[in-house]
Amino acid sequence: MFPLIREILAMAPRSQELTVRGWIRTKREMKNLVFLEVNDGSCLASIQCTLDPAAGGLSPAKLGTGASVEITGKLLPSPARGQEAELAVSALTVLGEAPGEDRETAEGTIRAYPLQKKRHSLEFLRETPQLRGRTNTLGAVMRVRSRLAFAVHRFFQERGYQYLHTPIITGNDAEGAGALFRVTSQGGEGEFFGRKSFLTVSGQLEAEAYAAALSRVYTFGPTFRAEHSNTARHLAEFWMIEPETAFAGLNENMDLAEDFLKHCINTVLEDCAADLAFFDERIQPGLSGSLRSAAESPFTRMTYTEAVGELRKPGAGPFEFEPRWGADLQSEHEKFLTEKCAAGPVILTAYPREIKAFYMKLNPDGKTVRAMDVLVPRLGEIIGGSEREEKLGALCSRMKELGIDTEGYGQYLDLRRYGTVPHAGFGLGFERLIQYLTGMTNIRDVIPYPRSAGQLF
Amino acid sequence: MFPLIREILAMAPRSQELTVRGWIRTKREMKNLVFLEVNDGSCLASIQCTLDPAAGGLSPAKLGTGASVEITGKLLPSPARGQEAELAVSALTVLGEAPGEDRETAEGTIRAYPLQKKRHSLEFLRETPQLRGRTNTLGAVMRVRSRLAFAVHRFFQERGYQYLHTPIITGNDAEGAGALFRVTSQGGEGEFFGRKSFLTVSGQLEAEAYAAALSRVYTFGPTFRAEHSNTARHLAEFWMIEPETAFAGLNENMDLAEDFLKHCINTVLEDCAADLAFFDERIQPGLSGSLRSAAESPFTRMTYTEAVGELRKPGAGPFEFEPRWGADLQSEHEKFLTEKCAAGPVILTAYPREIKAFYMKLNPDGKTVRAMDVLVPRLGEIIGGSEREEKLGALCSRMKELGIDTEGYGQYLDLRRYGTVPHAGFGLGFERLIQYLTGMTNIRDVIPYPRSAGQLF
Repeated sequence: MFPLIREILAMAPRSQELTVRGWIRTKREMKNLVFLEVNDGSCLASIQCTLDPAAGGLSPAKLGTGASVEITGKLLPSPARGQEAELAVSALTVLGEAPGEDRETAEGTIRAYPLQKKRHSLEFLRETPQLRGRTNTLGAVMRVRSRLAFAVHRFFQERGYQYLHTPIITGNDAEGAGALFRVTSQGGEGEFFGRKSFLTVSGQLEAEAYAAALSRVYTFGPTFRAEHSNTARHLAEFWMIEPETAFAGLNENMDLAEDFLKHCINTVLEDCAADLAFFDERIQPGLSGSLRSAAESPFTRMTYTEAVGELRKPGAGPFEFEPRWGADLQSEHEKFLTEKCAAGPVILTAYPREIKAFYMKLNPDGKTVRAMDVLVPRLGEIIGGSEREEKLGALCSRMKELGIDTEGYGQYLDLRRYGTVPHAGFGLGFERLIQYLTGMTNIRDVIPYPRSAGQLF
Repeated sequence: MFPLIREILAMAPRSQELTVRGWIRTKREMKNLVFLEVNDGSCLASIQCTLDPAAGGLSPAKLGTGASVEITGKLLPSPARGQEAELAVSALTVLGEAPGEDRETAEGTIRAYPLQKKRHSLEFLRETPQLRGRTNTLGAVMRVRSRLAFAVHRFFQERGYQYLHTPIITGNDAEGAGALFRVTSQGGEGEFFGRKSFLTVSGQLEAEAYAAALSRVYTFGPTFRAEHSNTARHLAEFWMIEPETAFAGLNENMDLAEDFLKHCINTVLEDCAADLAFFDERIQPGLSGSLRSAAESPFTRMTYTEAVGELRKPGAGPFEFEPRWGADLQSEHEKFLTEKCAAGPVILTAYPREIKAFYMKLNPDGKTVRAMDVLVPRLGEIIGGSEREEKLGALCSRMKELGIDTEGYGQYLDLRRYGTVPHAGFGLGFERLIQYLTGMTNIRDVIPYPRSAGQLF
């Protein structure tokens, strides 16, 4: 296949003839020279192409922002600052124009190319998902997203974890995990699967089953919440990563989560340096430094009880919500713990049983469970996990206590009936991880096609 | 983390003390020695553990098939055939029993462990998805599946492709692509997204958008068909891989598909040798050899017209359906082409426009389109792809011809309005790929939780 601009820009310029394919970002016309910045999305940088407008047949009028071009020329050392090479154009073909103003055609009016101007609000771009990948910001996000997804697989595969596709359509109504989407066949005659079906909110229960067979598994797939809250923090459709480890307890789980986050940070620092520098400069000043420091130091570990103690110390507030043992931590509390108290990621353990899920293993104190949440600066909770209750009796009592019908959990309980083992796992929203690593503040800007209430662009 | 049995079996036995964690597959009791085969799902092989039943506190009665154990002992060279090492047990803990017969407990009757006997039909196992990963066959499938998924990512990442998560919930009703699942919020009051929404049948259209921004993208995500056909070839929920390449035509697309399949074959041959040998021996005799030969030779390439010519040659049949230009190829025809005619994979091109999708680019003959299907022995079509129509006028005429409302495809047509480029891509069902590489004949046995009409175990 032909070389990408990323590959061309990595070559030493030696007057070699090359063909560049991409989209024009900008055009500057001088007296005897036209400068085109051409980008193909393979990297943040564009390649500068210089052409003599007098030369045979070139029509600079068609070279508007957004036009697609195929350009052949010689790769020369560039006299310009900030770039090592540029392309001296010998032949140029416009593959597709991008009109600078509205135009009438046989296929109706074509509106002026919406991304002509250099800067667009992220709000505007959200309504143009089919084109926004061509901007610097969204292009950089999608490259980081891609590289990070690969890093997720590499991390777990290297540690003997099997990638598991847990089902998207499920009969489980996810007791208390929030609003669900229903799945029906389009005709609507009866239930397609013979019973009510939903979109999954988590692959954990199924991951536990395969961890009880393959020892170490991880999921990486889409999950869904039909929440009507329309905020910068929530999506109706998002991707989750959920490792589950048999024969492991809370300490192994914490170590895995910490190693994993550090691996993700290091991947972005190493593989996405140019994109990260862009985010640091334009989106979140200080980003690289804070990520580097998180990767280099051990995460602070404390119990929920200790955290509440820190939050109640004189001088810790003021908080809108008073920190109180037994209540969920609020964003402001998480912010204080990560940004002020620890100045980095924090792993909290031993939460009150009342505020955590039924499957978490009780601590000997009877009051707290073997949960672990990882909080990071800016975003707060990014990972939630626990050691699971692996004893049939203890799990059933806990479910009864909470009024959960054990009938609907027959398969899950079977894992405790047949060769049960201690096990632990955690879940992490992929989009929140990308937000942490890019500094992007609205979750809708880190997924190609964001889905939320009332919006389906 | 503690070592997996796969890692332990790769060690040289030097009387080192180790701890093994896993599930008992079989127990053989001799006069003074008990042999346990312990498996943890990290590889096909189990480790043999030998213990003296007279030694302190061991109760062989609890060591039934399916029980989970933690065993410490010394790794010694094994006198037995077919294994280099075995574990001489010094301490054994039963973590969880798997009762050999029905048992009454405080949590109700626990039925005898359903996987006690050595062989189970795949049909039986399908109804026990929470446990079937513990069998040799399903364990091997899931390990191959995991490794193959990683190989998919590696292949595309190494070639400059960006991994793209196309949306699962879509407003596109997928013109003619088959029955759809509807998505509604559980309450059901109005449309959650403000308009009708469905589960995706393909990420292609959205992948085209991001290919027109990042040049090379690939998807790997779940797709859905609400087909009522309950066969060994169809699932309601399956995973698809869809690369899309900007500035590429049909030839680059064919090369990519062929390189990709060969990469997948080589991955299984190299990374999954023991599992593949199992499939060769138990599931599909001759599998390894046929895969090796497919990886080593160029795929046969011919046009649809040439293929029909081959099928109509004297001696080619007899066929139930007469091969006829203009009609879809039937399984029997695909079988003949791959197994008799080419004795390996075949890439067919230039299909009649009438039997292919609206977005495929017309050939200059006006009768055929720049489609490419890859057929493989045993399974038939495994990849379907094409060069896409990138000209606005030609695409709109084609859509009008087929009665497709262009209104619903505004974003898709925008790609042809603004900097359009030649591009091509293909789609491949991940489960069919796994079937091809493992020899498994029923598609429900190559996905952890199969979903099909009337079945939601």
